[in-house]
Amino acid sequence: MTETNAITVDTLIFARWIIPVRPANTTLENYAIAIKQAKIIDILPATEARITYQASKTVELNDHVLTPGLINTHSHAAMTLFRGMADDTPLHEWLEQHIWPAEGQWVDEQFVFDGSQLAIAEMLRCGTTCFSDMYFFPEQTAKAATQAGIRAHLSFPVFDFPSAWGQGADDYIKKGLQVRDDFKHNDKITIVFGPHAPYTVSDEPLKRVATLAAELDINVQIHVHETQQEVDDALAATGKRPLQRLDELGLLSPRTQLVHMTALNSDDIALVKRSGSHVITCPESNLKLASGFCPTQALLDAGINVALGTDGAASNNDLDMFGEMRTAALLSKAVAGNAAALPDWQALEMATLSGAKALGLDDKIGSLEIGKEADIIAIDLSAIEQQPIYQPISQLVYSSCGHRVSHSWIKGQCIMDERELNHMDLHDIAHKAQHWRNQINA
Amino acid sequence: MTETNAITVDTLIFARWIIPVRPANTTLENYAIAIKQAKIIDILPATEARITYQASKTVELNDHVLTPGLINTHSHAAMTLFRGMADDTPLHEWLEQHIWPAEGQWVDEQFVFDGSQLAIAEMLRCGTTCFSDMYFFPEQTAKAATQAGIRAHLSFPVFDFPSAWGQGADDYIKKGLQVRDDFKHNDKITIVFGPHAPYTVSDEPLKRVATLAAELDINVQIHVHETQQEVDDALAATGKRPLQRLDELGLLSPRTQLVHMTALNSDDIALVKRSGSHVITCPESNLKLASGFCPTQALLDAGINVALGTDGAASNNDLDMFGEMRTAALLSKAVAGNAAALPDWQALEMATLSGAKALGLDDKIGSLEIGKEADIIAIDLSAIEQQPIYQPISQLVYSSCGHRVSHSWIKGQCIMDERELNHMDLHDIAHKAQHWRNQINA
Repeated sequence: MTETNAITVDTLIFARWIIPVRPANTTLENYAIAIKQAKIIDILPATEARITYQASKTVELNDHVLTPGLINTHSHAAMTLFRGMADDTPLHEWLEQHIWPAEGQWVDEQFVFDGSQLAIAEMLRCGTTCFSDMYFFPEQTAKAATQAGIRAHLSFPVFDFPSAWGQGADDYIKKGLQVRDDFKHNDKITIVFGPHAPYTVSDEPLKRVATLAAELDINVQIHVHETQQEVDDALAATGKRPLQRLDELGLLSPRTQLVHMTALNSDDIALVKRSGSHVITCPESNLKLASGFCPTQALLDAGINVALGTDGAASNNDLDMFGEMRTAALLSKAVAGNAAALPDWQALEMATLSGAKALGLDDKIGSLEIGKEADIIAIDLSAIEQQPIYQPISQLVYSSCGHRVSHSWIKGQCIMDERELNHMDLHDIAHKAQHWRNQINA
Repeated sequence: MTETNAITVDTLIFARWIIPVRPANTTLENYAIAIKQAKIIDILPATEARITYQASKTVELNDHVLTPGLINTHSHAAMTLFRGMADDTPLHEWLEQHIWPAEGQWVDEQFVFDGSQLAIAEMLRCGTTCFSDMYFFPEQTAKAATQAGIRAHLSFPVFDFPSAWGQGADDYIKKGLQVRDDFKHNDKITIVFGPHAPYTVSDEPLKRVATLAAELDINVQIHVHETQQEVDDALAATGKRPLQRLDELGLLSPRTQLVHMTALNSDDIALVKRSGSHVITCPESNLKLASGFCPTQALLDAGINVALGTDGAASNNDLDMFGEMRTAALLSKAVAGNAAALPDWQALEMATLSGAKALGLDDKIGSLEIGKEADIIAIDLSAIEQQPIYQPISQLVYSSCGHRVSHSWIKGQCIMDERELNHMDLHDIAHKAQHWRNQINA
């Protein structure tokens, strides 16, 4: 085929390696990805790609591996402004004496916008191309995400008690559904229900969320079984484990994302499996708050979809999904008592395709497959700290931090190029973070 | 005082923050360190330093924190050439089916020199200025360390069985003591005993090590209680727990460094406390091999000195002590069931002064104090991923990787300047790593 017969595409990315996640546990060497109109239209050997396609933009990444963009399925983006404000304190003290008072005093529209920008900058620079969030003023996070070019699945909070954003459960639901309506034509934003936790939302609003979620086909994200204490308190107060109560209220369905999930017994696991609900594990936050251990391998063995999240930077203290993959892989082995548990390729799958499944986006993203939208990251494996390379997947999961990510594309658009973000002003974002810190510390 | 009255020093480092480790949990803001003839001669406010001292070399680090150089108290440097070769396999299978056969085939003088260089380059770039190692051909690791300018505490291996380096226990001991003699005038190298583990060395050689160590005042580093299986096997075979056996053989003393230390009961902990031996925990390796959990906080509560090591890159898979500090701090909380366990400042102490104590070097290094040798690192906290900064110690432990380290000095000599190593050729080192990988994979 001569050049004039070549098919025209928007972007052609050549890479030393591609790990597409589907087929599972596969590494392609010296391949290329062709992108047209936001979608992956071909994945083929580099030599064939040079003959077959002609691109408006060609990128050559000789030391790099391409993977699907990472999906951070649980965060509280704006809380990045509280990063390191109250370390080394237990969950209840952390919430009641530090976080909730600080939120009461400082959280407003500007705080959420500025904090979301800070979080999004960090997430993009660490390879996250889609994040799921739960926080007040979700319209501000949606605005920040849209400006930055990142995908976002935003669960609006529902509590029994009031906050700067809502008066009570009914008001939260009303406001949240309005935000959903406002962003319904935005192809990168999804707005869903985020009832905070079984212990902060009573039966009536939880039932209402369940009904509306089913009627309108809306996802639900909820913190549940974060600690043994939560389970014990619920048993003492109601005679029911939190998961059992959620099930009775109709809240466990394939649209539901259960975040944290420590302190699980075999009935809990069977219940989740039957319901088709998804689990989101946040291992670093669980460790830092001494919340407990999610039995990741046991959940996978039961056939449950398990996705991965960083939780907020206030309890992590970063939003780096590479670190989170590593912690998940390492900790799962120790908790399972089996060094073969959660192998590297499966940790990457958890941070990509399993995340897309949990968010109901796996028809569009989560793997590098022909026909899917082009959410792609490139990781540079040339540093001395990553030599030698037997299997690049090992380097990705066991010896990389997010700063190795060099490029990202979301829906085919280049969002980060050689670590420069195309739609964010880091100087301005850092300046605003410093401003908030000065106010909060004053 | 005019400039002509200023005291002349070799190096003056101005930094936004200094965390000296002693006094404990202290952060100095806008301070400087004066270095003369390899030692710290003053730590004082920047404004005073500009009046008091005149330096041959002045370094201004406006976004940085200075800490003592990190001390990696357990590694197998040369095994970095096996990084990622056999992931996700249990300890016994990993050793017996992968590592030991590969060592049998490949380990020689050149392998150890090249692998040690690779490890040292990574360690220096991640802020480690002193490392403790256990491997064959320790003279090669000593040579590589000396060329690179890093401090090294090298425990020569002792096994019952032969290897490329020795014929049996007597031969290992003879060769090791010869290496010790060869390097006795090298002020950065210490050579000590490294009997591999209770299950690979029999009573007679262990007794001989104990006797020689006491007579010659030489440290001993040994793997012990790495897994519950090791303890169970020892109980079945001898009726004794490994620690009890080591104690009866005279091997537990203040010169002894006990590596791993999972599967501990209260008698074990009391025994270690009485003996004055040090514990070296390697949390990431213990997780990755599903070895078990070291009860770090319980050991600290008992008054035992606990230091930190990465173990070899083959079971980690990096040599980044920042990641290891973070994992230690996070995991200790979960294991203790207390989010206040191992706070950030104490994790840094574990990676610095506690390491120096374990290696018997705390009169020289481990903290930034007047009179100590100037082993110092600078960490750049200006990245967006680290904003905002409430307490810099939090950023160091909970949101940094080793690549944030910008500078290091060892005995007052600048070893790394803006991430460039002054005495290592990274291109050559990477090339050799690739060469070994090609041979091993062939």
